[in-house]
Amino acid sequence: MEPVWNGWGSPDFKKPLPKQADSVLTERLGTSLALPEIELEALAASVSPSRLNDSELLTTEAKTRIKYSRGQSLPDWLALKYGELERVTDAVAFPKDELQLQSLLELAYQLDAVLIPYGGGTSVVGHINPGNDPRPTITVSMEKMNQLLSIDPLSQLARFQAGVRGPDLEKQLNEQGYTLGHFPQSFEWSTLGGWIASRSSGQQSLKYGRIEQLFAGGTLLTPGGKLVVDSYPASSAGPDWRELILGSEGRLGIISEAEVRVQPLPEKEQFYASFFPSWQAGLAAVRQMAQQDIHASMFRLSHPTETLTQLQLALEPKKLKRLQQLFGLLGLGDQPAMLTWGVTGNKKHCRQQKRAIRKQIGQHGGRLALKRLGDHWQHNRFGAPYLRQSLWEKGYLVDTFETAANWNRIEELQQEMERSLAKACPQTPMMCYTHLSHVYAQGCSLYTTYLYPNKGSYEENLERWQAFKKAASQAVIDGGGTISHQHGVGEDHRPYFEQEKSKLQQSGLTATLAHYDPDKRMNPGKLINGCAPKETS
Amino acid sequence: MEPVWNGWGSPDFKKPLPKQADSVLTERLGTSLALPEIELEALAASVSPSRLNDSELLTTEAKTRIKYSRGQSLPDWLALKYGELERVTDAVAFPKDELQLQSLLELAYQLDAVLIPYGGGTSVVGHINPGNDPRPTITVSMEKMNQLLSIDPLSQLARFQAGVRGPDLEKQLNEQGYTLGHFPQSFEWSTLGGWIASRSSGQQSLKYGRIEQLFAGGTLLTPGGKLVVDSYPASSAGPDWRELILGSEGRLGIISEAEVRVQPLPEKEQFYASFFPSWQAGLAAVRQMAQQDIHASMFRLSHPTETLTQLQLALEPKKLKRLQQLFGLLGLGDQPAMLTWGVTGNKKHCRQQKRAIRKQIGQHGGRLALKRLGDHWQHNRFGAPYLRQSLWEKGYLVDTFETAANWNRIEELQQEMERSLAKACPQTPMMCYTHLSHVYAQGCSLYTTYLYPNKGSYEENLERWQAFKKAASQAVIDGGGTISHQHGVGEDHRPYFEQEKSKLQQSGLTATLAHYDPDKRMNPGKLINGCAPKETS
Repeated sequence: MEPVWNGWGSPDFKKPLPKQADSVLTERLGTSLALPEIELEALAASVSPSRLNDSELLTTEAKTRIKYSRGQSLPDWLALKYGELERVTDAVAFPKDELQLQSLLELAYQLDAVLIPYGGGTSVVGHINPGNDPRPTITVSMEKMNQLLSIDPLSQLARFQAGVRGPDLEKQLNEQGYTLGHFPQSFEWSTLGGWIASRSSGQQSLKYGRIEQLFAGGTLLTPGGKLVVDSYPASSAGPDWRELILGSEGRLGIISEAEVRVQPLPEKEQFYASFFPSWQAGLAAVRQMAQQDIHASMFRLSHPTETLTQLQLALEPKKLKRLQQLFGLLGLGDQPAMLTWGVTGNKKHCRQQKRAIRKQIGQHGGRLALKRLGDHWQHNRFGAPYLRQSLWEKGYLVDTFETAANWNRIEELQQEMERSLAKACPQTPMMCYTHLSHVYAQGCSLYTTYLYPNKGSYEENLERWQAFKKAASQAVIDGGGTISHQHGVGEDHRPYFEQEKSKLQQSGLTATLAHYDPDKRMNPGKLINGCAPKETS
Repeated sequence: MEPVWNGWGSPDFKKPLPKQADSVLTERLGTSLALPEIELEALAASVSPSRLNDSELLTTEAKTRIKYSRGQSLPDWLALKYGELERVTDAVAFPKDELQLQSLLELAYQLDAVLIPYGGGTSVVGHINPGNDPRPTITVSMEKMNQLLSIDPLSQLARFQAGVRGPDLEKQLNEQGYTLGHFPQSFEWSTLGGWIASRSSGQQSLKYGRIEQLFAGGTLLTPGGKLVVDSYPASSAGPDWRELILGSEGRLGIISEAEVRVQPLPEKEQFYASFFPSWQAGLAAVRQMAQQDIHASMFRLSHPTETLTQLQLALEPKKLKRLQQLFGLLGLGDQPAMLTWGVTGNKKHCRQQKRAIRKQIGQHGGRLALKRLGDHWQHNRFGAPYLRQSLWEKGYLVDTFETAANWNRIEELQQEMERSLAKACPQTPMMCYTHLSHVYAQGCSLYTTYLYPNKGSYEENLERWQAFKKAASQAVIDGGGTISHQHGVGEDHRPYFEQEKSKLQQSGLTATLAHYDPDKRMNPGKLINGCAPKETS
């Protein structure tokens, strides 16, 4: 199935806003003006012609070029729906195998074109947008390379072509009794190669690990040849070259195959929602659980503001009121912090862990373990992005940003992130809320969502986004967070990546990229800018 | 306390061979001739003079130079004890702080000298030996930089100067209620910086993680400046530069400070020994436990040959016989495989895990859980290297090698490793045995010990070692193992590292090293050879 060309996901699936949403939005953001959506035909007629010719490997058809030129960031949506595509890729290729991929690298050299590797096109930071390199651009969609190549049940390893999307990957594994367990929110459309290239993290990374722990080795086609990284359970033989491919964002080459660590399908999987009297109490509880021998499969702690917003959207006012009365009776106040949590494994493990988690929650004043709300989360776990379309149709713009930081910075950082948004466009009504979605012994991630109403033109809406993004990103860096926990760097985070990393780390990365791609032919302008290759090293 | 200059560890500690050992050794290897030990004074009189002058930062005293010129490999012992030091470092420095370290880098540039970073000198693969670079050599001992700098209890992070030895590190942490939990066999003498530079793995890595998981960030002084890597709980902002420092073996620069992930001291820690009727049954049991939600703190599975040898050395013949009778009664045969295992954590965790582990062991035909043998292992966990001296005194040479591989290769690889030794010097009596000491879902490590008798001259003994080492290393590579799971590459594994890693991985590493160290001034000749710096990238 082909996804919507100018928004998120399946064309057959809509997620209308709950009927309670209207009043919440109007109350907090005022009424808004409908936002436009240009037709694909009209847009195709207006884009600049390709600088390349059709060939066996390349298509230059305008509609295809448009579809593969933007990701899922808010500026991407604005550009696609207003029809303000500054740049469109010159051609799209759909290689069927490594041989064709190799031919594309040679063709790019012959044509002096640059290549943009394209997984599922779900980037929210501009990974796959044509940049300002003057050379023609070929976007390489990996969607036809989606097969399970081999499986080693004893070592629990599976080798895939890297273009495989989440559901296809899981289906091929599930048929043999296995799972990878990597479920980012973009799961339904994103690809294995994309996860690796952008250091993705799944919702249950607490159990299964981030993609860093799952990616065991593979093959990357670079302009200088094939970079093969063999797979060992562990090794002390020098720096780990997998870690260079992870997060390489297409700058080194194109990941063609990847070996991943899989597990037998779990016997049982359960999700619950519990509530804490405060954000601080919830933070202390999840921190202590992350630092102990407690094995949940996920923790997602919503700040009281997010908790209230989510409950307002999920429940009819009457039901919400009853729940709030219950909160009061349980000593949670009327603005508790919701913790969604899960256990995954065999029955005994789930039982033991569930008991241990409930005990810890109780020790921090937390109450309840509502399976119904846990199930609600599970059934909607990949659904949130569809809400953006429903909001768009009502004239509201929504975006998110995220980070990870050490525990000793989290409370202040969360406040600063939200404060920075409030200060960024003081004239614009804005609502925002935050949750924590990944925990580690050392710290956790923070994920902030913000909404603002349409104020008319493309430029006005984009400028507002730029102001919000700039303020929030700077708050992240100033507060000791990384510019991204799970979305990568791409174009949008590049200036902050350059603030975050030390000078010698950047120069080393630049030198390494230049070694593999001396002509800066691979996804130039993403991740890191500086790359005057032959001179720098 | 200063360690023995020409062997392992403390001068005040001896570990005599058990009285049963004589007959075991004579029976399997024949009698042997005593091995020599030259006096330090005599050796100091014979080494070539230093090419550098004494200064505030450098000492060129011959005895000091000798002490810091060799590690703990068998060829190192042969060279030190026979007095056959081909090369001795020209000077040794003992920087007190980062400023002095920086001065040493500048001094090396002025003198056109090369630098060898020196942690605890416990390398068994030639990491700290002066190589064949024609320039004078300065060995930089980090032993004075051994302080805990800061601790963040909330994020469970501690920052240390990198020259801190294991016991000093644990003492400084224990005083505040924390532990790093990194206990390689070399723990008592090796250093934090050395662990990082060589990708070390501790005996309880199953609980605490390898040094890769413990090292959170730090500072490395390179010839081009200070490379700072900040510490985040996780990040998707580009390739992880920590992973370049890990395993860099001094080739990038000198690690001056490191932040590590610590944990509160565990409530409880227990070790047991169980027995399986066969190696295969033991392998299946530990593999399945590593692939399930079972949380031991260590597994060490001895092959039946190692089990028998260890029991023969640990027990008087009468006691051994009684134990073997018990094995028979329990259906274990007379050559079972011993599994030493541990649990670490709070009481409840230990109780639950102990129960789960015993159940799994039983399901694979395993029997017993002898705390006495577990305690024996615990009390001797750092003692094995002292046995080398006792063997030396009786005229027997001992060495080990190790690897890690996927589960589907383990059985054959273990056989091939031992077979390769048997074939290497068919005229030399040799005994060998193997254990598995680290398990992962994907595979495990294998660790083989071999002994052979002294046959006279330095050259004859060294040649035999070379033949054994070559045969074993090639068997590892041919059998799909990594050339090292926990000892690193150094000089001795370099040819096999070059076989193990793909061409483009090697060229990329070479280019990256050249970026930070264009003059090849940092520990040249270790890890990877090729480094014609400015031209290659």
